Amino acid sequence: MTISPLQKARYEYEPKLPGMLRSGIDTIAVKEGAPTQSVADQEAIKALFPNTYGKNEITFVQGESSAKPEKQTVGVILSGGQAPGGHNVISGLYDALKAANPENVLIGFKNGPSGLIEDDFVVFDDDYINAYRNTGGFDIIGSGRTKLETEEQFKVAAEVAKKHGINAIVIIGGDDSNTNAAVLAEYFAANNAGVQVIGAPKTIDGDLKNDDIEISFGFDTATKTYSELVGNIERDANSAKKYWHFIKVMGRSASHVALETALETQPNVCLISEEVAEKKMSLKDLTNYIADSVEKRANNGDNFGVVIIPEGVVEFIPEFSALIAEINELLAGAKADAFNELPTWKEKVEFIKNGLSKEAWEVFEILPENIQQQLFLERDPHGNVQVSLIESEKLFSALVANELKKRAEAGTYKGKFNPLHHFFGYEGRCAFPSNFDADYCYSLGYNAVLLILNGYTGYLSKISNLSKPASEWVAGGMPITKMMNIERRHGEDKPVIKKALVELEGKPFKFFEANRDKWAEETCFLYPGAIQYYGPEEVCDLTTKTLKLEQE
Amino acid sequence: MTISPLQKARYEYEPKLPGMLRSGIDTIAVKEGAPTQSVADQEAIKALFPNTYGKNEITFVQGESSAKPEKQTVGVILSGGQAPGGHNVISGLYDALKAANPENVLIGFKNGPSGLIEDDFVVFDDDYINAYRNTGGFDIIGSGRTKLETEEQFKVAAEVAKKHGINAIVIIGGDDSNTNAAVLAEYFAANNAGVQVIGAPKTIDGDLKNDDIEISFGFDTATKTYSELVGNIERDANSAKKYWHFIKVMGRSASHVALETALETQPNVCLISEEVAEKKMSLKDLTNYIADSVEKRANNGDNFGVVIIPEGVVEFIPEFSALIAEINELLAGAKADAFNELPTWKEKVEFIKNGLSKEAWEVFEILPENIQQQLFLERDPHGNVQVSLIESEKLFSALVANELKKRAEAGTYKGKFNPLHHFFGYEGRCAFPSNFDADYCYSLGYNAVLLILNGYTGYLSKISNLSKPASEWVAGGMPITKMMNIERRHGEDKPVIKKALVELEGKPFKFFEANRDKWAEETCFLYPGAIQYYGPEEVCDLTTKTLKLEQE
Repeated sequence: MTISPLQKARYEYEPKLPGMLRSGIDTIAVKEGAPTQSVADQEAIKALFPNTYGKNEITFVQGESSAKPEKQTVGVILSGGQAPGGHNVISGLYDALKAANPENVLIGFKNGPSGLIEDDFVVFDDDYINAYRNTGGFDIIGSGRTKLETEEQFKVAAEVAKKHGINAIVIIGGDDSNTNAAVLAEYFAANNAGVQVIGAPKTIDGDLKNDDIEISFGFDTATKTYSELVGNIERDANSAKKYWHFIKVMGRSASHVALETALETQPNVCLISEEVAEKKMSLKDLTNYIADSVEKRANNGDNFGVVIIPEGVVEFIPEFSALIAEINELLAGAKADAFNELPTWKEKVEFIKNGLSKEAWEVFEILPENIQQQLFLERDPHGNVQVSLIESEKLFSALVANELKKRAEAGTYKGKFNPLHHFFGYEGRCAFPSNFDADYCYSLGYNAVLLILNGYTGYLSKISNLSKPASEWVAGGMPITKMMNIERRHGEDKPVIKKALVELEGKPFKFFEANRDKWAEETCFLYPGAIQYYGPEEVCDLTTKTLKLEQE
Repeated sequence: MTISPLQKARYEYEPKLPGMLRSGIDTIAVKEGAPTQSVADQEAIKALFPNTYGKNEITFVQGESSAKPEKQTVGVILSGGQAPGGHNVISGLYDALKAANPENVLIGFKNGPSGLIEDDFVVFDDDYINAYRNTGGFDIIGSGRTKLETEEQFKVAAEVAKKHGINAIVIIGGDDSNTNAAVLAEYFAANNAGVQVIGAPKTIDGDLKNDDIEISFGFDTATKTYSELVGNIERDANSAKKYWHFIKVMGRSASHVALETALETQPNVCLISEEVAEKKMSLKDLTNYIADSVEKRANNGDNFGVVIIPEGVVEFIPEFSALIAEINELLAGAKADAFNELPTWKEKVEFIKNGLSKEAWEVFEILPENIQQQLFLERDPHGNVQVSLIESEKLFSALVANELKKRAEAGTYKGKFNPLHHFFGYEGRCAFPSNFDADYCYSLGYNAVLLILNGYTGYLSKISNLSKPASEWVAGGMPITKMMNIERRHGEDKPVIKKALVELEGKPFKFFEANRDKWAEETCFLYPGAIQYYGPEEVCDLTTKTLKLEQE
């Protein structure tokens, strides 16, 4: 046996399309909506995208098809980190192309955008596609992080496209990749290359989200996987009644994953990076916040609990960011050698004390020694602190342990505190896509072909009304430029898709905020269990609580 | 909402009983088999269990019921670490008791065996039981690790039983707990207490296994959960193509969990502690074994892979065990103070070098510094090294990195090596039980009531023929003394149930051994996906590959 029973069974799953895409490609017409403009910096964006800016929003409706009758040759690229459902975008593309015309061709470029530049490709056929239907991973053609952003790359891309007779490229990626898709579309349009570009919104982080993208694909499956694990650990905590579990979950720039996982599992504490930044919370504030939950629960006789920590949280703590900046400064250039030559950690600490501002030293001083050492000993090739390597789950449990020790000495805390640590990230990026992600992604791919057949470029494949059953989903397209603004990146003004952070005024956070005091003290754990692909609809077809709350 | 959709749906699941238990308790007769004797040390065990030794093996068959007509009051205890399905043993007990006579009573003692001694209990009713059917965890009454082994405890247990009118106690636990169940049964029999004792075989570690126990409950669900995660990570590795994942899985004394997970996922490398001990493998041997896989794959252009490491492996490496013993000796008593007073790690290392034998020092020297420090700085209250805290996944990745560096310098290795680390244990102990564990556990509980009604004591509830569909399962009982031998524990000869280690001549290991060279070099990953409770039978009802291979 070379595949698992579930994989075999999932091959047979038929993803659900939006109702109006079900009756065949030749019955689908375009309904043009209003012209669009970018969410900010309209003049600047328009100047950068003279050929693709301001186009109309469109939806598909039943009617006489306006699709191009010509044979289509389409290229597809997976870009960036894995997200469950990528294979289904490709199978949706393939099936729609073949439904439109069996002569149509789908070419996959390997290992990300670099495959297009290096002309490293496969031509899909039925057998190839069938081996990846409804499966996780990006192994169908591999992914990569090369950025398509220079004129030189665009020229090569045009040549490769011309060589294959490619008339459209679909880029499956996150905010940066879709930004690049828009730039590439503009280049092709400006140079009459005859190649359309369509994007598909991918990221488990959930931060590619706006008025037009209700949810990025993969977020549903990844958070369901993390919620399964957090729920299992909660049940273990509530059975053993002797451990506090500190669980870090993926999500460096936004805390959507942490928030959704918290909504699904109702842990005692969940930190939200955006709130930390907004309220300028200090390490001490966060430590006290967690320690308060531990103390209250100990007073109830419950010396156990669960804390969720978003991967990037330390970068959002203003005083911690300031410390990192000072350390990077302190170890720049020749000073690093002087530091490195000091024989003992004690002498190094003296050097650090003399080199940091009083404020930064005070923050450094409260860190546990292993974290202190990590900041100074594990630096990237440029000498900078590797913030992503900081084990923040261990940092917080150590700070909480210190705080509880003080409270115990003061007599206000009488409990026991045994912390355990977990980090969940890689576990969820390649799970078999949930029914929701399988359906959504297949629809995104299928829909992308309709955009291509109708001549659009610089558009994002858009499926909406997603908290409803698939039969009620709405298919269409949106110019990518609509989602852009100008941001400063590496010292340059760049047109980029705005990253969606957790909104503190949004309904998901508000729901969390309204309940968290109760969760912090009582045991309100929810146990979602493993993702189910079969069985009752309410078990296997529901998408995230975040989306449900947002659309309520 | 206070419960998840899956939990709600699982309440409705009806566990499958062995076919012959399905037609009602009053249609079930006992078929006595041959008298039994212990697996070893027969005379000694017989002397220790004069009242319960040598009893007959029994099976249940269709026929005239020989069950006691009296009202039954049964107590139940969960003992030791959580395992999925514990709640179903209790619901099986409850349903069988109520089916036999609605007046029968089931009492749960809280937080493990201490609940019996402290008379901390609940009386179950329908509503109570219904809230826990087919769910994970031991939170229905909690568990605990108190051992019932002293005469004093037995006396109190008899008094508590008498107070409640309890005529039987069911102990759900691992090898130690079932050993204690046998001792308690003997005590009650010797003292005419009128209380029977029945055991149920629990442990996710899979090491409570013998001719009579085909599988301990919880092993199926826990390994399916770990296999889900390992498979997801494998798919991530095969998509990103840039990481080596070192994954530690639970299982301190035996490697059944690691082996089953490897059979389900086909990683590049899986260490088996029993093989390490048998072949007296050194750290260097194991490092080279893993590095060889990394090198071969790098030569094929694959700079990624997955390594599974059983939690307890370092304790099975003879030279490492010897090092630990020397360290414990070195830091015993007053010498610890001298060591602790040394101000720098460098001076401490000098002390260590002088204190260890040449052989032990050579092992110490090849360890990465953080592991060296862990061995000396984090000791238990008795001053001993805390072997269970050693992050062996990081130990091996560091050793492999060093080895690869040497090979790179020698020009034989040209790849890239980026390791990532994971530990899976708590994630699987409280998952919703798989259909197999839900059925098996419910049957164990139901069957225990039949043993009670027929007057047996010192028996283990036994369900066999488990690789077949439940309709073909065989229900019966086995004297616990049959599984015992005498072992030296804490300087005393004790009657204990023999722990089942992975047999190097057994079919599961043989299958692994026959395939692992291929797996080490090629990418043969299997992706089992999340446990499914609904859907095609081959997806949701299959038990472990270990059992399948054993029963082939």
